Amino acid sequence: MEAQLVETAILTILNHQCLIATKASRVVYAAQGDGIMEFGLRRAQGPDAGLYGARAAVIGGCVGTSNVLAGEMFDVPIMGTHAHSWIMTFKDEYTAFKEYARLYPDACTLLVDTYDTLKSGVPNAIRVFTEMREAGIKPKSYGIRLDSGDLAYLSKKARKMLDDAGFQDAVIAASNDLDEFLIHDLKMQGAAISSWGVGTNLITSKDCPSFGGVYKLAAIQNADGEFQPKIKISENIEKITNPGNKTIYRIYDKETGMLRADLICFADETFNTREDLLLFDPNATWKKTLLPGGTYTMRELLVPIFQHGECKYESPSVKEIAEFCRQEKETLWDETKRLFNPHKVYVDLSQKLYDTKTKLLNEAHH
Amino acid sequence: MEAQLVETAILTILNHQCLIATKASRVVYAAQGDGIMEFGLRRAQGPDAGLYGARAAVIGGCVGTSNVLAGEMFDVPIMGTHAHSWIMTFKDEYTAFKEYARLYPDACTLLVDTYDTLKSGVPNAIRVFTEMREAGIKPKSYGIRLDSGDLAYLSKKARKMLDDAGFQDAVIAASNDLDEFLIHDLKMQGAAISSWGVGTNLITSKDCPSFGGVYKLAAIQNADGEFQPKIKISENIEKITNPGNKTIYRIYDKETGMLRADLICFADETFNTREDLLLFDPNATWKKTLLPGGTYTMRELLVPIFQHGECKYESPSVKEIAEFCRQEKETLWDETKRLFNPHKVYVDLSQKLYDTKTKLLNEAHH
Repeated sequence: MEAQLVETAILTILNHQCLIATKASRVVYAAQGDGIMEFGLRRAQGPDAGLYGARAAVIGGCVGTSNVLAGEMFDVPIMGTHAHSWIMTFKDEYTAFKEYARLYPDACTLLVDTYDTLKSGVPNAIRVFTEMREAGIKPKSYGIRLDSGDLAYLSKKARKMLDDAGFQDAVIAASNDLDEFLIHDLKMQGAAISSWGVGTNLITSKDCPSFGGVYKLAAIQNADGEFQPKIKISENIEKITNPGNKTIYRIYDKETGMLRADLICFADETFNTREDLLLFDPNATWKKTLLPGGTYTMRELLVPIFQHGECKYESPSVKEIAEFCRQEKETLWDETKRLFNPHKVYVDLSQKLYDTKTKLLNEAHH
Repeated sequence: MEAQLVETAILTILNHQCLIATKASRVVYAAQGDGIMEFGLRRAQGPDAGLYGARAAVIGGCVGTSNVLAGEMFDVPIMGTHAHSWIMTFKDEYTAFKEYARLYPDACTLLVDTYDTLKSGVPNAIRVFTEMREAGIKPKSYGIRLDSGDLAYLSKKARKMLDDAGFQDAVIAASNDLDEFLIHDLKMQGAAISSWGVGTNLITSKDCPSFGGVYKLAAIQNADGEFQPKIKISENIEKITNPGNKTIYRIYDKETGMLRADLICFADETFNTREDLLLFDPNATWKKTLLPGGTYTMRELLVPIFQHGECKYESPSVKEIAEFCRQEKETLWDETKRLFNPHKVYVDLSQKLYDTKTKLLNEAHH
């Protein structure tokens, strides 16, 4: 009964934040070490989706967010530049840049596409950077942001103009409907961009805007505390549930620390890592992998949060979760992180769980 | 300055709810009069996206939502059936159905796909409906819900089984990754379904999960109260802004009341509907339409919400907004409501606004 009370709240929160953290991980992976800034609030599915989406994006590897409230609440870096409206408030672009540089000399990123990127924006930015240099002002971080037009072409042209003026350390940031695929392509084409603002596509996970976590009843505990396994049958194979009171182990290669598979089993099963472990695909059972004893390690993934109505867990900070997430992703093979058609991480069933599932399936289809 | 303070909040709220109301309108249109129930909370982009998404879905035409909090907060119908876990809690499906019928004799929709839809679910439902009939219980609403398998095939088979048992008025509801395209196809194939639960695809607007509303500075008011028009140029034509302090009129055909076009113009422009009105596409200016005087009516779409810091507007109830939305959609031609490749509603500029825009564009590109 308790599970049904919390079911939807937990699903909604986990599905959303796992979705955005996953999307952010893909974008960060595509950027090959460049910083990704989360820029999506105005396109989020409501203010809270923007707020908790920013949290999840930082967990997934973003270096910061333009969401000021998220920055305050979760103690993560707030990043961004000015808007086009800043430029349009002044009599001309140069005056607007100059005033921005006066107010933010230490993080002076100028948005150069309000009127004409190469004819007006970049030359005016260089004029202001030159004046700063002449006045002896050395900004901690400065540069330009491109927000329209062809980002590969414009960034290379702008890079040359900045370099020729002696601003080799000026950062070129870019935004404009970016996602992991476009960043991947722009980098392939040698775009001179090292900082990326990603909005709509990240905060909504646009190409896949839902994460399919579900709640299913798996077992009922009787008065003696024993678990009676339950199964849900379906015409759709992936909707058939795994019965019983279960847990999940992650199996790593002992030598490299890389992930081999996840193993779902009953909570009371025990394993001896000095013994051989036979893994098999739960749907395609002829696909088997034998892990020889002594070559692998196992870590239980479930940790108790509430026990007997008491919270047993202290939630880490967002920065700590982001670091944990980064370390976990390092145990994934590149093949499983590939943007197109990645290899799947194997999720196997223990022999005992598989046997119970088969028995219940056969009983239902008699 | 005030506009920039409220900019992101307004955009985030409006973009999200306009998105979901639009998606709901499409799904409702595809269902050709059948009821659409909003079922998506667990897949929404966070709890608030689920709550306000449910509100927007009802505004877009859904008959109700499974989101109980949304039902309470916005005074809209709460709808749904039991979960698979309800069935699995009992010793068998028949016992679970019987208990549900005892608790909810007036809205008894039984989910029939936990074990086997045609061999177990539908026969058990018919057994319980028969017992209700024999006991003299006449439910206000009763029937079955299909949640997996081929919905066209299963609904026709289930319809025949229910009809043969004398339950011609039993409703067949369906769910399972539905959207407007699938509902459209299922209806084309004669699926015997008259009530649809739509979850993930509706609450996230899955095929288009963002609505592109933006804030741009259009004019600055000087000390004398005069508006100085401002323009933002862009390599991307659709990103060039319309300058000045503007309003928008909707133009209807006088005889039929159907929508002809929207007209963006300066706030101080006046029109005489007895005179001819020349409309032209702002990007493809050779496309012109002449509306003869006396054949059209105009309605200003902008209404004041805040004036001089005071709220001048009373927000209607969600039911009233839904009714307003329904009436507005009746003024749209079927051609613009088509699911695939619809005709666009024309949005034109007044001659005066077009001239100002052209002048500012020419000044910028000198």
